[in-house]
Amino acid sequence: MDFSSFLTSLATSFVLFFILMCLFTWLSRRPGNHVIYYPNRILKGLDPYEGLRVSRNPFAWIREALASTEADVIRMSGVDTAVYFVFLTTVLGIFVLSGIYLLPVLLPLAATAHAVMKADNSTSQGSFNDLDKLSMGHIEEKSPRLWGYVIGTYWVSFVTYCLLWKAYKHVSDLRAAALMSPEVRNEQFAVLVRDIPPVPEGQTRKDQVDSYFKAIYPDTFYRSLVVTDNAKVNTIYEELEGYKKKLIRAETIYAANPQGPRPTTKTGLLGLIGEKVDAIEYYDKKIKELILKLEAEPKVTLKDKQQCAAVIFLNNRLTAAAASQSLHDTMVDTWTVMDAPESRQMIWSNLPKKFYERQIRQYIVYFIVLLTIFFYMIPIGIISAFTTLENLNKLLPFLKPVLDIATIRTVLGAYLPQLALIIFLSMLPKFLLFLSKLEGIPSQSHAERAASGKYFYFNVLNVFIGVTLGSSLFSRFKEIEDDPNSIIPLLAKSLPGSATFFLTFVALKFFVGYGLELARIVPLIVYHLKKKYLCKTDADLKEAWAPGNLGYATRIPGDMLIVTIVLCYSVIAPLIIPFGVAYFGLGWVLLRNQVLKVYVPSYESYGKMWPHIYTRIVASLILYQVTMLGYFSLKKFIFTPVLIPLPILSLIFVYVCNNKFYRFFQSTALDVARRELKETPNMEVVFRSFLPPSLSDEKGGGDEDEFEDALSHVSRANSRV
Amino acid sequence: MDFSSFLTSLATSFVLFFILMCLFTWLSRRPGNHVIYYPNRILKGLDPYEGLRVSRNPFAWIREALASTEADVIRMSGVDTAVYFVFLTTVLGIFVLSGIYLLPVLLPLAATAHAVMKADNSTSQGSFNDLDKLSMGHIEEKSPRLWGYVIGTYWVSFVTYCLLWKAYKHVSDLRAAALMSPEVRNEQFAVLVRDIPPVPEGQTRKDQVDSYFKAIYPDTFYRSLVVTDNAKVNTIYEELEGYKKKLIRAETIYAANPQGPRPTTKTGLLGLIGEKVDAIEYYDKKIKELILKLEAEPKVTLKDKQQCAAVIFLNNRLTAAAASQSLHDTMVDTWTVMDAPESRQMIWSNLPKKFYERQIRQYIVYFIVLLTIFFYMIPIGIISAFTTLENLNKLLPFLKPVLDIATIRTVLGAYLPQLALIIFLSMLPKFLLFLSKLEGIPSQSHAERAASGKYFYFNVLNVFIGVTLGSSLFSRFKEIEDDPNSIIPLLAKSLPGSATFFLTFVALKFFVGYGLELARIVPLIVYHLKKKYLCKTDADLKEAWAPGNLGYATRIPGDMLIVTIVLCYSVIAPLIIPFGVAYFGLGWVLLRNQVLKVYVPSYESYGKMWPHIYTRIVASLILYQVTMLGYFSLKKFIFTPVLIPLPILSLIFVYVCNNKFYRFFQSTALDVARRELKETPNMEVVFRSFLPPSLSDEKGGGDEDEFEDALSHVSRANSRV
Repeated sequence: MDFSSFLTSLATSFVLFFILMCLFTWLSRRPGNHVIYYPNRILKGLDPYEGLRVSRNPFAWIREALASTEADVIRMSGVDTAVYFVFLTTVLGIFVLSGIYLLPVLLPLAATAHAVMKADNSTSQGSFNDLDKLSMGHIEEKSPRLWGYVIGTYWVSFVTYCLLWKAYKHVSDLRAAALMSPEVRNEQFAVLVRDIPPVPEGQTRKDQVDSYFKAIYPDTFYRSLVVTDNAKVNTIYEELEGYKKKLIRAETIYAANPQGPRPTTKTGLLGLIGEKVDAIEYYDKKIKELILKLEAEPKVTLKDKQQCAAVIFLNNRLTAAAASQSLHDTMVDTWTVMDAPESRQMIWSNLPKKFYERQIRQYIVYFIVLLTIFFYMIPIGIISAFTTLENLNKLLPFLKPVLDIATIRTVLGAYLPQLALIIFLSMLPKFLLFLSKLEGIPSQSHAERAASGKYFYFNVLNVFIGVTLGSSLFSRFKEIEDDPNSIIPLLAKSLPGSATFFLTFVALKFFVGYGLELARIVPLIVYHLKKKYLCKTDADLKEAWAPGNLGYATRIPGDMLIVTIVLCYSVIAPLIIPFGVAYFGLGWVLLRNQVLKVYVPSYESYGKMWPHIYTRIVASLILYQVTMLGYFSLKKFIFTPVLIPLPILSLIFVYVCNNKFYRFFQSTALDVARRELKETPNMEVVFRSFLPPSLSDEKGGGDEDEFEDALSHVSRANSRV
Repeated sequence: MDFSSFLTSLATSFVLFFILMCLFTWLSRRPGNHVIYYPNRILKGLDPYEGLRVSRNPFAWIREALASTEADVIRMSGVDTAVYFVFLTTVLGIFVLSGIYLLPVLLPLAATAHAVMKADNSTSQGSFNDLDKLSMGHIEEKSPRLWGYVIGTYWVSFVTYCLLWKAYKHVSDLRAAALMSPEVRNEQFAVLVRDIPPVPEGQTRKDQVDSYFKAIYPDTFYRSLVVTDNAKVNTIYEELEGYKKKLIRAETIYAANPQGPRPTTKTGLLGLIGEKVDAIEYYDKKIKELILKLEAEPKVTLKDKQQCAAVIFLNNRLTAAAASQSLHDTMVDTWTVMDAPESRQMIWSNLPKKFYERQIRQYIVYFIVLLTIFFYMIPIGIISAFTTLENLNKLLPFLKPVLDIATIRTVLGAYLPQLALIIFLSMLPKFLLFLSKLEGIPSQSHAERAASGKYFYFNVLNVFIGVTLGSSLFSRFKEIEDDPNSIIPLLAKSLPGSATFFLTFVALKFFVGYGLELARIVPLIVYHLKKKYLCKTDADLKEAWAPGNLGYATRIPGDMLIVTIVLCYSVIAPLIIPFGVAYFGLGWVLLRNQVLKVYVPSYESYGKMWPHIYTRIVASLILYQVTMLGYFSLKKFIFTPVLIPLPILSLIFVYVCNNKFYRFFQSTALDVARRELKETPNMEVVFRSFLPPSLSDEKGGGDEDEFEDALSHVSRANSRV
């Protein structure tokens, strides 16, 4: 890629961004679009503009975003989101502080170097352009100027250590503050038990669980909820809900036009085939049938489909916190107790999976992920070889007339490889999340963390290393196979060649990615289409504009890829620093807006994502340090070993940090859980909040007692509530 | 070593053993020696022969040992000892079951092989003797007979897996039974807190600790004992006890001979110089002075020398068990809570060491141990090169006339290298225990486990690998340095050459080692000498015959070395199996006797030693499997890769076992701790049992209140007791 395509790329990106901003300003003012641009506020019962200064200033949202505090974020979107902003702030801080040294010192050092470029160097890595003159590649071998780069390498590392330490402490405090809040949080009064041994002769599962926990927690045990196989009752429930929805829709249609014909439907598949009947009557009949079924089925489910997992309710959050950390049975693989996730993020079907089954599943999933990471390299290699204009011309000669137009040629030359990469990558996250759930993880947040971790390694290995080594990878495969250590010098050698590719990649990500994020063009179009052609009732409409959550499983690995790229290039090509700053600065402002107004978190894990993010930042840092080691030795710099302490320091740093902070992210500290509550929790409410909707729906009066009976709870008599 | 020296060595060992047995039979009958041969029974208040059949049969003790049950061992010597016997039984079982296949199959296979020995083979490994004809070395390369050895390798591994699994389960049950016993065990009501943060302004350490734990355990907190720097008060206390002892001794001497002169002493150093005074009066005066001091000092200590560690007493062992497993503060490095060891094995001076200090100390100690292991190889190499008769003749020519006598020559030839090795090794354990205590470990049993672990690696690396590779090690050092993997084939190549050395080593260990163990010649002589010349009072006498404990820190690594040797040679030279069986069989019987009658355990860790032993047995097994891989490939056996699954299987086995069982050895399961107690514990007694003797001694009436005052306990008023 030459310098002009780089500039073209930047310019077009910016133009796109500008257009998207204008669109946003225009679209977000139209009240009909408020459900797209302010859903979080609407769902929280706030007026879209309430409490905000209504102004015609198109940049008012920026001022609002900048003025919002961490407490606002926690109130509107929870601790997890606040922690995500700590991540953004920290990375931004790292880049800004790094830039303070790198830009004013290293750029002049490179620009004024009298490097004589060797012929083979310029041919193998493309034409040597103006950008490269500002990079470390422009310094001649063994030059004493390299000391400036050594200092830069150390500077970046120490800045990262300091800010990460501060951030870890801050996140830990955020978590503690949330967990010690005087609000009653249902999941703090529950623990999850898995791997319950087979039921002894003459006892029910329920008796077994109750007697076990009553013996250990005589004063605090409230009752238990044995996990049941709800597949059948859920099917009935969903069918019922479906018919209810259809009935309302049919009634709405009829009410809108009472003179028209009564709506009809067909009894067969999807209402498309079969006998034609009156819709309202048909649905009414179906609903009555299903309600009858739904009255019988839960009792069967609760009695006969009990599985080897349960949720235990304790009327004291201190005891629950201690219980989730304690070994209950002498064998670790029976009566495994852990803290309960929120009921809304519980993956019920994973709960009864046995201890060893989970471990075996985990290893199998790791193996599949390994294969995925490895074999995805092949298509990516093909794509990066394929998406050059020359290749396109050769492979698809019919495109030649189009490609010969100069503008299209430049734009395509600038974007094609990046676009291909981005599209290609969007296919993976769902697959990884699916794999993570297969591991037997009990909560959605944990599954997303696991998927995010897998995606990070995929990104670094395939996108970063894959693109950098690019075509040279396959030709040098033999070399790497003979000596796996040779990958580091190879990577170091190839890095400068891909600098402009990654500069463009980052720019594209923040201009176009964040532009689309803010403008919400796709959700807007989908919403309006649905509204016009599909939605009949209010519930339908609400479903159509449901904003979804921030999507950590793909967002964080995406950000982490940028962190890795910017860190690795920071000293080699300091020009990347402003791009990194722009990515995270723009991201911060934009996402503040989105978080306060748009996204609704679908779970709360009290910052458990942080240690995961932290470890991966340090992993990127170590990759950077090792790459620098390789690059300095390529420069034949004899003092290269002065950099050896850096990766060791990073390992010590990560070890000390995890030692100090990590355990609190696994479990709740007792000093936190002991804090006073605002009110005594109503344990019945806590208990009901964990019932799946198909079992907790109360229909008719007589149900309640039978339900209680089926659950046969033992302890209410002598519990303290 | 040729075959005749081997037989001589065996014969002399057996003669020595026989003599020691006779000595034991004769000496143990003399009532004056009962304190040496039955101290455990005497200390437990039993008559030496009580309950045992008194018979003139010299082998009665063997019958008694065989008839004793595990419950007897636990009653007389505790769970730790019973676990040690599980170890002996398991290893014995492994060897016996291995032998069932190895001896009848592999010995004939080797003996009937038509191997043509190559000239260089026989010269490089000494003369090829009769023993070697029964070993795997006698099978020719690529022979299909090697399949018999492959099956043997698998057989030994699977036998080990089965028995180890059973043993782990059994030990876990033993531990559970002991911990759930209805007896009140003081340490079950206490937890240890370390890393207490600095005292806030205007509070005492005591207040800080009490308020922290009262908030978390409002119902169960009894009181706390802040660890104090007792150095000064201990000095006074010891001085006082010393003078008391001297006074009693002087009075005894005077009472024995009232007509003689009153005993005198000198006031200076060690009673040897200075003014001559009447001993009884002088000691009396000193004691009165010190008692006064001892009344003042504890108050100062308790108030001003409080340190950042404490023992917390909870009046419920279930809460204590849960507390020791829970995170208390959000930072792992403050308010670290763990289960309290017994007070008698607490290493008080290690308690106030800070979190990071402990970690840094640990790494420094590991580094020193690494250096020790590495540099001890040099003297051992020199010794094994030096202690051949030829070398002795050359180096110490004046010994030549003695060495020329045939008998001496044979005996020395048989014993010299082994004796040198054994003496050399006896110097190390104390040093390793000292190092382990420097790590900041809070209990004696833990320190002994740590020392034992270090000693095991030392043994395997230096004795086993060191002796096997012997002189060839240094000549091949360059080779190993170039390619560290070459150590395995090198080891495999050298193993057969050292087979007879190790056969003799094992024989020497069990005949002479266990002979001395049973006969207790050294303690007997020391006791009688002390009794005759030093002991004046009953306390002196009791001290002189104090039997000590089993000494796990040296005993287990010694046994583990034999396990490693026998496992590694089991298939290569199956003749070692009977020696291994003899070692552990004889050991079992002999130590049963010693445990029931002699040794008094100085602490109880409820079998925490087991996971440690277990891991090291599996480590030996893996070493064996890897060595076999090397040895088979030396035999150019093309099916060698069929052995590759074995080390992988071992790793999976150790992973699964530790996953399932290990956590219960770190902390007490709640299901165990919840069991009913025989009686409500008297918390005052529990508390007092943790006071160091210098602080708990009650002298005079008025002390108690002031003492209470100094401890300023807060909670008694509202504790449940």
